[in-house]
Amino acid sequence: MAGSTLGTLFRVTNFGESHGPAVGCVIDGCPPGMELSEADIQADLDRRRPGTSRHVTQRQEPDRVEILSGVYQGRTTGTPIALLIRNQDARSKDYSAIAETFRPGHADYTYWHKFGIRDPRGGGRSSARLTAPTVAAGAVARKWLAQQYGTTVRGYMSQLGPIRIPFESWDAVPNNPFFAPGESKLAELEAFMDQLRRDGDSIGARIEVVAERVPVGLGDPLYDRLDADIAHAMMGLNAVKGVEIGAGFASIEQRGTEHGDELTPDGFLSNNAGGVLGGISTGQPVTVSLAIKPTSSIRSPRRSIDKSGAPTVVETLGRHDPCVGIRATPIAEALLALVLADHALRQRAQGGDVRVETPDIARRQGQ
Amino acid sequence: MAGSTLGTLFRVTNFGESHGPAVGCVIDGCPPGMELSEADIQADLDRRRPGTSRHVTQRQEPDRVEILSGVYQGRTTGTPIALLIRNQDARSKDYSAIAETFRPGHADYTYWHKFGIRDPRGGGRSSARLTAPTVAAGAVARKWLAQQYGTTVRGYMSQLGPIRIPFESWDAVPNNPFFAPGESKLAELEAFMDQLRRDGDSIGARIEVVAERVPVGLGDPLYDRLDADIAHAMMGLNAVKGVEIGAGFASIEQRGTEHGDELTPDGFLSNNAGGVLGGISTGQPVTVSLAIKPTSSIRSPRRSIDKSGAPTVVETLGRHDPCVGIRATPIAEALLALVLADHALRQRAQGGDVRVETPDIARRQGQ
Amino acid sequence: MAGSTLGTLFRVTNFGESHGPAVGCVIDGCPPGMELSEADIQADLDRRRPGTSRHVTQRQEPDRVEILSGVYQGRTTGTPIALLIRNQDARSKDYSAIAETFRPGHADYTYWHKFGIRDPRGGGRSSARLTAPTVAAGAVARKWLAQQYGTTVRGYMSQLGPIRIPFESWDAVPNNPFFAPGESKLAELEAFMDQLRRDGDSIGARIEVVAERVPVGLGDPLYDRLDADIAHAMMGLNAVKGVEIGAGFASIEQRGTEHGDELTPDGFLSNNAGGVLGGISTGQPVTVSLAIKPTSSIRSPRRSIDKSGAPTVVETLGRHDPCVGIRATPIAEALLALVLADHALRQRAQGGDVRVETPDIARRQGQ
Amino acid sequence: MAGSTLGTLFRVTNFGESHGPAVGCVIDGCPPGMELSEADIQADLDRRRPGTSRHVTQRQEPDRVEILSGVYQGRTTGTPIALLIRNQDARSKDYSAIAETFRPGHADYTYWHKFGIRDPRGGGRSSARLTAPTVAAGAVARKWLAQQYGTTVRGYMSQLGPIRIPFESWDAVPNNPFFAPGESKLAELEAFMDQLRRDGDSIGARIEVVAERVPVGLGDPLYDRLDADIAHAMMGLNAVKGVEIGAGFASIEQRGTEHGDELTPDGFLSNNAGGVLGGISTGQPVTVSLAIKPTSSIRSPRRSIDKSGAPTVVETLGRHDPCVGIRATPIAEALLALVLADHALRQRAQGGDVRVETPDIARRQGQ
Repeated sequence: MAGSTLGTLFRVTNFGESHGPAVGCVIDGCPPGMELSEADIQADLDRRRPGTSRHVTQRQEPDRVEILSGVYQGRTTGTPIALLIRNQDARSKDYSAIAETFRPGHADYTYWHKFGIRDPRGGGRSSARLTAPTVAAGAVARKWLAQQYGTTVRGYMSQLGPIRIPFESWDAVPNNPFFAPGESKLAELEAFMDQLRRDGDSIGARIEVVAERVPVGLGDPLYDRLDADIAHAMMGLNAVKGVEIGAGFASIEQRGTEHGDELTPDGFLSNNAGGVLGGISTGQPVTVSLAIKPTSSIRSPRRSIDKSGAPTVVETLGRHDPCVGIRATPIAEALLALVLADHALRQRAQGGDVRVETPDIARRQGQ
Repeated sequence: MAGSTLGTLFRVTNFGESHGPAVGCVIDGCPPGMELSEADIQADLDRRRPGTSRHVTQRQEPDRVEILSGVYQGRTTGTPIALLIRNQDARSKDYSAIAETFRPGHADYTYWHKFGIRDPRGGGRSSARLTAPTVAAGAVARKWLAQQYGTTVRGYMSQLGPIRIPFESWDAVPNNPFFAPGESKLAELEAFMDQLRRDGDSIGARIEVVAERVPVGLGDPLYDRLDADIAHAMMGLNAVKGVEIGAGFASIEQRGTEHGDELTPDGFLSNNAGGVLGGISTGQPVTVSLAIKPTSSIRSPRRSIDKSGAPTVVETLGRHDPCVGIRATPIAEALLALVLADHALRQRAQGGDVRVETPDIARRQGQ
Repeated sequence: MAGSTLGTLFRVTNFGESHGPAVGCVIDGCPPGMELSEADIQADLDRRRPGTSRHVTQRQEPDRVEILSGVYQGRTTGTPIALLIRNQDARSKDYSAIAETFRPGHADYTYWHKFGIRDPRGGGRSSARLTAPTVAAGAVARKWLAQQYGTTVRGYMSQLGPIRIPFESWDAVPNNPFFAPGESKLAELEAFMDQLRRDGDSIGARIEVVAERVPVGLGDPLYDRLDADIAHAMMGLNAVKGVEIGAGFASIEQRGTEHGDELTPDGFLSNNAGGVLGGISTGQPVTVSLAIKPTSSIRSPRRSIDKSGAPTVVETLGRHDPCVGIRATPIAEALLALVLADHALRQRAQGGDVRVETPDIARRQGQ
Repeated sequence: MAGSTLGTLFRVTNFGESHGPAVGCVIDGCPPGMELSEADIQADLDRRRPGTSRHVTQRQEPDRVEILSGVYQGRTTGTPIALLIRNQDARSKDYSAIAETFRPGHADYTYWHKFGIRDPRGGGRSSARLTAPTVAAGAVARKWLAQQYGTTVRGYMSQLGPIRIPFESWDAVPNNPFFAPGESKLAELEAFMDQLRRDGDSIGARIEVVAERVPVGLGDPLYDRLDADIAHAMMGLNAVKGVEIGAGFASIEQRGTEHGDELTPDGFLSNNAGGVLGGISTGQPVTVSLAIKPTSSIRSPRRSIDKSGAPTVVETLGRHDPCVGIRATPIAEALLALVLADHALRQRAQGGDVRVETPDIARRQGQ
């Protein structure tokens, strides 16, 4: 069934296959009057782009975005913004064997059962390539949030397999291929990845995303809570197997006297809530943590079956990310921006005075 | 904005406040012809009901459900099923002070900022009492799934604060107030809870939910993936701060050779996927794990502010669950059943042959 | 499939059957802070109520509405407003024969084919009784529109069968059982209806609805245009077979020089548009005209078939409106109010300055 | 707000502006496995295309469609089908003056008020050019309906201004530029249109659309009735001011004994219902009639105002259809096909046995 639309009021409809003519999306509901050019979007696309280091897939895609509609004389018109990214480096021959078997841990099996037909080239619709339009749409949402509320959305990798990466500074994030928030672990990460490639294996990762200067009051209980919609967007990202808000799973062992964030006239004293109480934003930073599983397309031989149900062994060659978590950071940021923009519009509909809270709390956010 | 509807095709709209005249819901989209009576629903409501042990809130609510529509001569007619539960044991006087201050960790703060007005009696709309209609709707979904596909949905508590509860058997779950899957930890749990009450504090918990005999092919990528919709429903449950599918956060440290579930002609050899690949059900058990934070309404004094922003100290008296996780098991089951029923209908729309997979895999599920 | 929800942001979910325990609705999305009591709603329900003259069904229903949620201390809280109307004068015995045959022109045939089961008592779900919750919800929308924008929504009957009823004044409408806008035709209408009852027959009607002081800018092309959503709501009303906006079918023979409403600094010089251009409100009065077919439940014998496909003759006894158009006026008003409220919220989400236009145009509206 | 998506399960999202780089749409929810090529779509696009006779706009657009996704090896994959049509004959210079004034009867006024910014080139988003993607999507829906149920959707012009065009045969429709169902009025139509162009004026029209071999049981009361959704789609088409189903406005003067379609074992004896009873399809032909207003862009001078509110006179030069009704037939067909496909999927979700009814009734339809 139709399932390629994200959001209610700030709404993205995604299309495309990994090795088809193009991928893209239609953003419906972006408010009018905002300056927007392809350059605004390209910057985020470039952060997600493949082929930028030896630790990610070597597919070469410029990921050039074309704005097809919804912008006139450099400003959004309030009508749908269609974004088109042509696929360029598609090699269909790599994927011929894949069509008949199911890679363990891969969507091959379920797409075939669900649809009875699938485009096997590069994973077709299930490819992580389809996150490119999501990132493009997220760039639009992010720009709008920044202009309206000063909201920022940033992420980083906090763990790659067994290696925990301590947060040192935001400045470090763009300066290494892992989106690591510091330099202290880079050599270890590089060595781990190089060995992994030699092993023909893959690895999981943990990503953190933080939105700051979030307006208070976003989220629509009972069911369309802000945290629920964040979880929906994040768990919908390829390879994500777990989502936490705020203290997350650590809450299990916390007592109420420890978990509940106390308030003072200067703001909250902690943020176990991760910026969401009762499904509604508090104005504190929204903090999200994601578990990303290891890539299922690996060179190491694995037991599987073919379409007829007969046993076989699968070894996946071709170009793949040995850690899909590496490129996940800009995607997770995009998703968080999209959910926040959607809920900001929802809150405006309700008539709420959508704003970032009192200066003191805002000041805390900015730290 | 409107946010009290869950699901697209099997669709529940929830209404009510903790101490208003009633809570309830309207189920729109339940297929016609299914036998349904109030007794079918009451059984699940009774499992969630307050006042059934000394470890939960002492509010006395019979939670009697009345079917107002959608059933004729004992069968569903395909038209909306409205369910009504009158509130009986509402004590407004307990909550008068709460109206002026914000309990740390509670939705008081955000509801007040979002709406500018809130019903403070018993938490009003943000109360866990609103999970009663969700459970009622879930009972309908569960019955339909069982009849159509033999699908079962069961849950248990696997951790309460620091106490990990090993899985011993499903049979144990209904025989203790914690939904613990075994007797070995019961004494420890009782003692822990008794001390907690004396301390005027609260505690978090972890809940596991498992659906078996799930049809293969449920889930609608790119965004409305089965796991995404499960995460949405679960993170939308009061006090949930984290959601995992399958291996969850453990995936971070797994290698591809370890995580990817191998297939043989007899079925999958493991279930790190938690029954979902590429956002679509595999036919294996769907396994979900939830982190539930400690209750925010506690007797211990906490720093907070009042509506004017002045500092104050909050001590919450009245009747509250010291561990909201205890009653969360039947609610999480209901949510999983609702998401599965919705996606089963979605898959029928697509024309998919919605079915439980090959006997061998089904046999594995039944274990 | 689920189809009992109207609206996107101001959203009504309807439930109930004609002779079940109750009918009602849940309004999700009504903004917080508006004064609301049962009396506000009852007034509109009383206008639609059966049994108020000899020209409508003699079923006696007080149609007492109970607000179950969403209102605290006399004000809306922004959470779902559930409205309950218990059925009182249900006579199941009248409808036993109906269950086996199909009344020509009635939903009997299609409900049976669609659902394979139906509640035949009083038409079950297809009964015009289900317009009561719509009217109740419309009363809430109407009050909100009036407070926010000064918008008014009024309707009248302009034709009953062959009798055209000239517009004389709004004041006349509430003072006769036909919602006729004048007294000049009342005697003729009464005589016509009395003869119709003696004939055991029924008749069609035309209803006009007008909204004044409508904010400019409501409507969301390309597809969710204001006129499209009005047409959806109106054609969804029982027995409606045609909908016109503005000049409607008369537009066919108009030239552009005649149809296009010229503008001057004082406002529009005509209103062929019916207040909608390009699917968006102009700020002029929104004018809608409806064709309502004759009631299908009539005493006169009609050829039909039974469930087995065998020929039969149907004569429908029991209590029925010989002209469903008579009670349609308050329902059509409610539907127009609901669509306008929904689009006003949608426009607020977009960030539009939702307002009634320049004074001069507003002055024209007020005439 | 987002309003460019039509349908719930068979779902079209439209984008583009008249003189932007491209127009197009994304179809989400089309079932997998159907053969589909650009040629299937092009045929319908060519019927709607401008510049094909002297009676329509002289803009030259090949309207070549490119399928960007959702089709693999000539078959739909169940994933979104993106369709792209590049604009070619855009002349921005024709529209410079339009940007500052409002054409009477045109969306200029409302777009400017709603969005505060608009693309004035060729009407921008409000242009009838945006019906091209709708027609393209409709071609996909139509093919699917034909394959699944043998459903056909056809239309014709039944009136142009004062000239009523009697139905003679379906065969005549494709053989004249008016979609007239016969040759008897062609000379009169040609002469009328030639004079109209000389006058610098425009004219309205009436279009009939008929779907045959429609499955019984489509439509989801209470609000998402089949007729309601048809009315929504049709009233959402540019320039439509009225919609009728079946007997339409003629129902007003009908008695129940005349209107209600009697049934015999061989099927219905008439079709005043237009194939819809109680909002659900009967299996008879669905018949729809549309009133289309005269084009608002005309050469004749008209009083208007400019953006500052000052009086002005507007004479619209450039290329325009003097009767937008002429090209409306294939668009109305597309819309009806889209609504029927959506409701067929909805009914499949419910589990209904979606089928064309008993042979005898089907035979009647086929006549």
